[in-house]
Amino acid sequence: MTRIYLIACGGTIEKVYSEQTGTVQNLDTKIDRYFRLLRLPDTQIETTHLMNKDSLDMTNEDRAQVLEVVRVKLTDPAPVVITHGTDTMVETGMVIKNNLPNLTVPIVMTGAMTPLGFEASDGLQNLTESLLAARILQPGVWVAMHNQVFPIDRVRKDRELARFVWR
Amino acid sequence: MTRIYLIACGGTIEKVYSEQTGTVQNLDTKIDRYFRLLRLPDTQIETTHLMNKDSLDMTNEDRAQVLEVVRVKLTDPAPVVITHGTDTMVETGMVIKNNLPNLTVPIVMTGAMTPLGFEASDGLQNLTESLLAARILQPGVWVAMHNQVFPIDRVRKDRELARFVWR
Amino acid sequence: MTRIYLIACGGTIEKVYSEQTGTVQNLDTKIDRYFRLLRLPDTQIETTHLMNKDSLDMTNEDRAQVLEVVRVKLTDPAPVVITHGTDTMVETGMVIKNNLPNLTVPIVMTGAMTPLGFEASDGLQNLTESLLAARILQPGVWVAMHNQVFPIDRVRKDRELARFVWR
Amino acid sequence: MTRIYLIACGGTIEKVYSEQTGTVQNLDTKIDRYFRLLRLPDTQIETTHLMNKDSLDMTNEDRAQVLEVVRVKLTDPAPVVITHGTDTMVETGMVIKNNLPNLTVPIVMTGAMTPLGFEASDGLQNLTESLLAARILQPGVWVAMHNQVFPIDRVRKDRELARFVWR
Repeated sequence: MTRIYLIACGGTIEKVYSEQTGTVQNLDTKIDRYFRLLRLPDTQIETTHLMNKDSLDMTNEDRAQVLEVVRVKLTDPAPVVITHGTDTMVETGMVIKNNLPNLTVPIVMTGAMTPLGFEASDGLQNLTESLLAARILQPGVWVAMHNQVFPIDRVRKDRELARFVWR
Repeated sequence: MTRIYLIACGGTIEKVYSEQTGTVQNLDTKIDRYFRLLRLPDTQIETTHLMNKDSLDMTNEDRAQVLEVVRVKLTDPAPVVITHGTDTMVETGMVIKNNLPNLTVPIVMTGAMTPLGFEASDGLQNLTESLLAARILQPGVWVAMHNQVFPIDRVRKDRELARFVWR
Repeated sequence: MTRIYLIACGGTIEKVYSEQTGTVQNLDTKIDRYFRLLRLPDTQIETTHLMNKDSLDMTNEDRAQVLEVVRVKLTDPAPVVITHGTDTMVETGMVIKNNLPNLTVPIVMTGAMTPLGFEASDGLQNLTESLLAARILQPGVWVAMHNQVFPIDRVRKDRELARFVWR
Repeated sequence: MTRIYLIACGGTIEKVYSEQTGTVQNLDTKIDRYFRLLRLPDTQIETTHLMNKDSLDMTNEDRAQVLEVVRVKLTDPAPVVITHGTDTMVETGMVIKNNLPNLTVPIVMTGAMTPLGFEASDGLQNLTESLLAARILQPGVWVAMHNQVFPIDRVRKDRELARFVWR
């Protein structure tokens, strides 16, 4: 069994529709329900539900907390997947890269443009890709989405195209 | 082939998630895509995309317009299904009932608490039910949702329970 | 709460794909998993998993058993839905009709052309329709599928069209 | 845009349910419908529908044909994904490996235990994984399924476990 740490930070990928308010918000985590749709016979996912925030609302303290959790996990190294809002995903990834220069495992960030379980969602695709990327990429901090993999310092979100692109 | 008139007025059942704004709105109609998921070998649906409004935004003029379309359709009578926001569905239904006292076909109103295509949506269930109700109910104005059928003057929405109940 | 008796007899609607054999068979019941996808706030379903047979394999003894279960249920009357293979659905329904002449509730038979949960399945549509039909039809024995309702003595399966038609 | 060659050979991943026979067979290709469920903004898939066979029915001639198509594609090199029945996937992969010793791109074989679009199918997961693997693996012949990647000469199917394992 290969272990993968999964750190859930919220973002669109985990947003849910509220029937009471008619809005889409980060209320409950739902990522575990979707992992169960995947076949992972040789993968043991250890999930940390760290926070459930729209990434536009994440503060420097929040990013420090993500960094701290990653640091603690890496005392017993295994690949890490971080689910995160797309708007500031790169910002959080750069904090990790700048503070953890000697990584021995890949740290893969992913998210979604449309919440898991909504029609045309890219969430399960991105989860699937990030889990595979965590297994086969070199050490470093990466973004994996939409059949693409980017080093964290070479990527930016293109809001109009609703995807990540090289920079 | 049995004809059914379908008049689409918007409401939650037709809301879509916008990746640009992260909100759920009545932007495009999508009801036809979902009808295609049903098997209707003996049913010919004639859809009128009348408006695409959150029913809290519907005005008296909007309701007069719905009434007028129903009236025109009934010159060549066939059962009618009206998809509509749930918040003022009963109000619109009462306008129809009060203005069309001698119905010879059923008029079935339906909608959804969660948009079609979102996880745990009741939209396709309600569409399925309203189409069957249109075939077998007596003439009159009805609400069909969640395996229940109510005469329009006996029903109210319970917001807390997120469903319709007797009144 | 309205009670509905559900008697599950197998048929295509409950068939599952076996990864070991690569075939589609009546192995386990799965109808309950699909009921949970419907919103039934005012409906209490009491399920009897009677048998799990391809209806081509059903014997006279099997049909006698279905009749007996229906008879017992009707000592405390409530509408009945029977899920059944389509090939001999009408045969079983006629046994019920001929032996229970004074029904006070509707008995609605349904099934599917493609198993529940397979792409393009009509299973959930037919379940949804049969549950609504059970609520609003007159006493009698009926087939409800594909937005149509037939009295049991007026219907036959058209294998080529993969649906039920009038006879 | 990154090009990926997709060579479809059939197997369980492409099987469909036939309502006429009640069996699951390789009748039509359906892989394109499922690619459309993925977001591939930077990927151009060039699909070759080579054959549509249960891999237990594949002959030496069939394997020679797969090899030939791969050889032709590699005159203009780009990563290759081959969808294939799981029972003889390794056999076909070994033919490719033994005959194409100086690969400059990865050739990724995948398939499924349950057909695309059936409940609990692993098909879309495996497609997603193989497309990502095609982008980031080293040159060579690989199997990608269930969040695992194997070199073709180190893998075998375990029928009882319904998955691939190291050998």
